[in-house]
Amino acid sequence: MIKVSIIGSGNVAQHLIKAFLKTTEVELIQVYSRKSESVSHLVNPEKITQNLSDLRESDIYILAISDDAIADVSAQLPFSNRLVVHTSGSVAMNALDDKNRKGVFYPLQTFSKNKEIDFSVIPINLESQNSEDYTLLEKLAHQLSEKVFPVNSEQRKALHVSAVFVCNFVNHLYQIGNEICDEHQLPFEILLPLIQETAQKVKELSPENAQTGPAKRSDLKTIESHLSFLNDENQKNIYQILTKSIQSHVKEL
Amino acid sequence: MIKVSIIGSGNVAQHLIKAFLKTTEVELIQVYSRKSESVSHLVNPEKITQNLSDLRESDIYILAISDDAIADVSAQLPFSNRLVVHTSGSVAMNALDDKNRKGVFYPLQTFSKNKEIDFSVIPINLESQNSEDYTLLEKLAHQLSEKVFPVNSEQRKALHVSAVFVCNFVNHLYQIGNEICDEHQLPFEILLPLIQETAQKVKELSPENAQTGPAKRSDLKTIESHLSFLNDENQKNIYQILTKSIQSHVKEL
Repeated sequence: MIKVSIIGSGNVAQHLIKAFLKTTEVELIQVYSRKSESVSHLVNPEKITQNLSDLRESDIYILAISDDAIADVSAQLPFSNRLVVHTSGSVAMNALDDKNRKGVFYPLQTFSKNKEIDFSVIPINLESQNSEDYTLLEKLAHQLSEKVFPVNSEQRKALHVSAVFVCNFVNHLYQIGNEICDEHQLPFEILLPLIQETAQKVKELSPENAQTGPAKRSDLKTIESHLSFLNDENQKNIYQILTKSIQSHVKEL
Repeated sequence: MIKVSIIGSGNVAQHLIKAFLKTTEVELIQVYSRKSESVSHLVNPEKITQNLSDLRESDIYILAISDDAIADVSAQLPFSNRLVVHTSGSVAMNALDDKNRKGVFYPLQTFSKNKEIDFSVIPINLESQNSEDYTLLEKLAHQLSEKVFPVNSEQRKALHVSAVFVCNFVNHLYQIGNEICDEHQLPFEILLPLIQETAQKVKELSPENAQTGPAKRSDLKTIESHLSFLNDENQKNIYQILTKSIQSHVKEL
């Protein structure tokens, strides 16, 4: 059994707690939460502590807390030479305090409070200072997921930036589609199959080969007609920037 | 049986042919193709014509051809007062020649030559000049899909523009994610579960409620760190424009 304690009670912490509780090889020792009620629906009260000094011995301590808190909280831990990992995509492993062995356990997914997550398909990206700790983290990660990758701090940052493009920015484009539909009394539902197919397509084709549309085929007439159709300056601006970017990629081929 | 002839042999034409051949209530009368070899793997040679003047009587003629050819080809049809529809998202119904009854049969999906399409979930958007023709088009559409919507020319244009945002532009953001991964020796595969989950999420939550990420929570430190991480001026520019747009939407709430 791998003994794990989780520091934090937000989205990622809660999803990790739920996922670990389903495994057979992980023993959840404790959860640290400033507000015990935020995890009391998931774990027994005796396993919840509001005090870092009460943390019991574990093989791995997972800091699932906000980026800004990682350095501070890791410095406040009342022990040394144990394995302490954070779960952040954008914080370097070295932000963790030097008194413990450092690592990163970064599941690349968008976590919503009210939506269940299937961890088995989530890539878990690992980093550690030494190979024994890597092996332990890998064993832990494989309890949750088929997809485990060694990813150093620089690569993790690249992943995090990529995720902003393919998740946060993509969702914002969905929102613009929704706005345009609303403006013309169309249900957003009408766009959903296209959204799903666009996401499915890149499982089989590279995004480069999957690209379609007026910008890709330099259909200037349609591009002009779309720009004059759009009333919102912000939508127009985004349309122009992304059209130009697609066109410059086509030219590069 | 509804008698249908298809004018055209491109992506949309081929997908429609395949789909109609699977139905029980549609009789595919003929396919017009300038190059008969492009559809000869789908229909019997006797049903393919390279000559518009050879078109046989049908209940509906579907022009699945490029936007620019719709006016011309519809004017060249050697008959009048029959139902002629096009399949374009961006061309008004009235672009069709006046000598026949006009309509639109617009399946909203991204069609790739080498990828099978499940028509049953594709929204088919219909328009016609009179209600009898609408009823016939609706009957035809329901042979292929559960999702049939009445959509006028203005709304169809709105749908087409929305589709550029949620499909073409989204795919381009996938491509940028792919580029950033390549640059840092990361497999694009690592982003796929996030891409799928982002698309799945808006089936349950509105895009507005599904929005996450540094721009949404005004995490200026992460935004700055991402911008200084990106080397490519085009990627930086897109990052800034979309971040600003997300922030302005948050403020509006």
